[in-house]
Amino acid sequence: MIAPLKIAVAGLGTVGGGLLKLLAANAEPIAARCGRPIVVTAVSARDRRKDRGLPLEGVDWYDAADTMAAHADCDVVVELIGGSQGIARRVVDAALARGKHVVTANKALLAHAGTELAQAAEARDVVLAYEAAVAGGIPIIKTLREGLAGNRAQRVYGILNGTCNYILTNMRRTGRPFSEVLAEAQKLGYAETDPSFDIDGIDAAHKLAILAAVAFGTEVNFAGVHVEGIRAVGALDIQFAGELGYRIKLLGLARMTEHGLEQRVHPCMVPLETPIAHVEDVFNAVVVEGDFVGRVVSEGRGAGEGPTASAVVADLMDIARGRRAQTFAVPAARLQRAAAAPMDRHRGAYYIRLMVRDRPGVIADVTAALRDEQVSLESMLQRGRRPDEMVPVVLTSHDAEEAAMRRALARIEALDTVLEPPRLIRIESL
Amino acid sequence: MIAPLKIAVAGLGTVGGGLLKLLAANAEPIAARCGRPIVVTAVSARDRRKDRGLPLEGVDWYDAADTMAAHADCDVVVELIGGSQGIARRVVDAALARGKHVVTANKALLAHAGTELAQAAEARDVVLAYEAAVAGGIPIIKTLREGLAGNRAQRVYGILNGTCNYILTNMRRTGRPFSEVLAEAQKLGYAETDPSFDIDGIDAAHKLAILAAVAFGTEVNFAGVHVEGIRAVGALDIQFAGELGYRIKLLGLARMTEHGLEQRVHPCMVPLETPIAHVEDVFNAVVVEGDFVGRVVSEGRGAGEGPTASAVVADLMDIARGRRAQTFAVPAARLQRAAAAPMDRHRGAYYIRLMVRDRPGVIADVTAALRDEQVSLESMLQRGRRPDEMVPVVLTSHDAEEAAMRRALARIEALDTVLEPPRLIRIESL
Repeated sequence: MIAPLKIAVAGLGTVGGGLLKLLAANAEPIAARCGRPIVVTAVSARDRRKDRGLPLEGVDWYDAADTMAAHADCDVVVELIGGSQGIARRVVDAALARGKHVVTANKALLAHAGTELAQAAEARDVVLAYEAAVAGGIPIIKTLREGLAGNRAQRVYGILNGTCNYILTNMRRTGRPFSEVLAEAQKLGYAETDPSFDIDGIDAAHKLAILAAVAFGTEVNFAGVHVEGIRAVGALDIQFAGELGYRIKLLGLARMTEHGLEQRVHPCMVPLETPIAHVEDVFNAVVVEGDFVGRVVSEGRGAGEGPTASAVVADLMDIARGRRAQTFAVPAARLQRAAAAPMDRHRGAYYIRLMVRDRPGVIADVTAALRDEQVSLESMLQRGRRPDEMVPVVLTSHDAEEAAMRRALARIEALDTVLEPPRLIRIESL
Repeated sequence: MIAPLKIAVAGLGTVGGGLLKLLAANAEPIAARCGRPIVVTAVSARDRRKDRGLPLEGVDWYDAADTMAAHADCDVVVELIGGSQGIARRVVDAALARGKHVVTANKALLAHAGTELAQAAEARDVVLAYEAAVAGGIPIIKTLREGLAGNRAQRVYGILNGTCNYILTNMRRTGRPFSEVLAEAQKLGYAETDPSFDIDGIDAAHKLAILAAVAFGTEVNFAGVHVEGIRAVGALDIQFAGELGYRIKLLGLARMTEHGLEQRVHPCMVPLETPIAHVEDVFNAVVVEGDFVGRVVSEGRGAGEGPTASAVVADLMDIARGRRAQTFAVPAARLQRAAAAPMDRHRGAYYIRLMVRDRPGVIADVTAALRDEQVSLESMLQRGRRPDEMVPVVLTSHDAEEAAMRRALARIEALDTVLEPPRLIRIESL
């Protein structure tokens, strides 16, 4: 048996704690599979006195993570602090500068600086691994980069944020509005006190930007992601989705189009007969469509102590075993700088919900606006009659261009009889 | 760029043809990802004159695959002939004896001789890779062996045979009996002329034996798999399954129990709310339950030219890139020889369908037999009345021991009023 792989762990929060527990609990099978043990030689966290119930005997303690990264006796620095800048960035920079491998769960950092960090790692001939940054316990980076590596990816998409999926699932099950279900999720610890990072789609967009780089061999381009969150999804929309044969999911989708790399995160109407429609609660799922393999779906827990630790350990075992892949599948210097496909040029089907005054002629005005923009209707639904009161009207369109749909909606919103801003949810062909 | 990886391909059927097409179509991204091209230097197939529409210029042709394996200029021999013995075995033996890496899609060979072949490969320090042997395009071997390698597997199960899943899906959709749907599947090419390998569960059992070895670090033990196929699943059972909130799927399941390694392949009642219940048609899916990651589900096409070629190429790219894992996750010499858990000791819930003469006292006799064997009923269902005629009665039990259930069924079958052998389908908690 060769020498142990020595790791220094920056951050002993949920993920760092889970990592130490996993390495202790499964030390024996891990060593058998790697041909060598993985040992923690150093850790860094804020409060040295806090009892974390972790096996820290004989481990060097550092108060400052960047000092640890620069000096600890280790082969790998594991960055589990988070954040796109500040201390997390300094830890990774210090480790790479010393020629140490880096394993991180930090999606924000990779979304903002992935290309640059990959170049730095490759220049030093060390690994920058980040399985835990995308979809938690699902080994989707390995799947894309190795398991399906013979394919040209045609599309990659998924449910990338467990908080949003939990909220949407429970809005559907209970019929309650977004704000109530969010408050409950916060109480249960499924949503943060400031939930905006999750529910506004930023977290999913970070992950999508990373996935797209691996899938399409492009530079990580978080700024090129079109992002909408789930705040505007109403209980009514969830109900109509069911009637129309859909579930509403916050998806991140990426594909290469004639206009460039399309990356978008927004609520979607997903047909009930697709696997992803049945991914519920806090579960995540990623779908890869490859030119030879067809559709491959991977589903699992996207967050939490155990799943995230599982992903970090997989990266460590690859390093321990000497298994190497290029950071984003191809050499960082060869990543393409693809134009971001403008959302205006997106084509797809749309669900539109209007709140209108129930009187003759409303539908005629609405459909005229759509017709003038060449948007072709697939269905129209008005439940019940309440003369002169506010009623919902739901329209679904055939494939149309986003810009045309936006122009039509602006005209519709300006109608006297339309009482609230129209709600738009894209219908995806999956 | 370093030297190309040279491969010799034994067998130019569906999979071999797909492999050559994929390597030609995606040569450029494959080389970029591996840092070197993969080139076919030799092929072997029965009829040299047949026009396969494949790029075979400059490739050495061998009429005999074993001669090719023994002599071709190559780094890797790819065995795509199939069969647990005969020529496929000779090809693999010859390649390993020469110290060549082997990539194969041959589940039968690995199920029967996996441990021995892994030992031979490891003795020569070469790779024996078989991603394509299990679940086609789904990279489940890599997922288990690397992506989830930090976990102790608690259970692994899945839909491992596309033909059976196609038949069961279409029996449900059309309400038609097994024999009709099988005939249709044969016409469409989804089932072989002699379908027994698929529909009797043998193919799924081969795959399960391989999965279990990787998941539990045990010797491959195909003989230890309890196997039942889908011939006895009736249209009535499919209908009752729906009423009870289940789908019927042919599953392969493996887990370590106090009685040894439990490996079983048989039709199962799967709760509708589980992801695997929604895996339909020819799709396969594999679920891994790990102690830290929880449940991870992977779904995709389990057979066919493109998906199988995708899996073979993933193995080749690992070899080209120098990525190595141990054949069955741990060194072959350390694989445990686990006892096979006897099916009699299995505990679970059961669905029982009886065809009985509709007269007073029948249910009392049936339930007395179950009670005497300590089998506790969960539900009983008799639809409609047809005095003195044959009617179906469906019972579901709470968890019971298989041996006790078998004894009760033997008594029930012997009743005058029970007109057909009882049908038993196990209800799985997933």
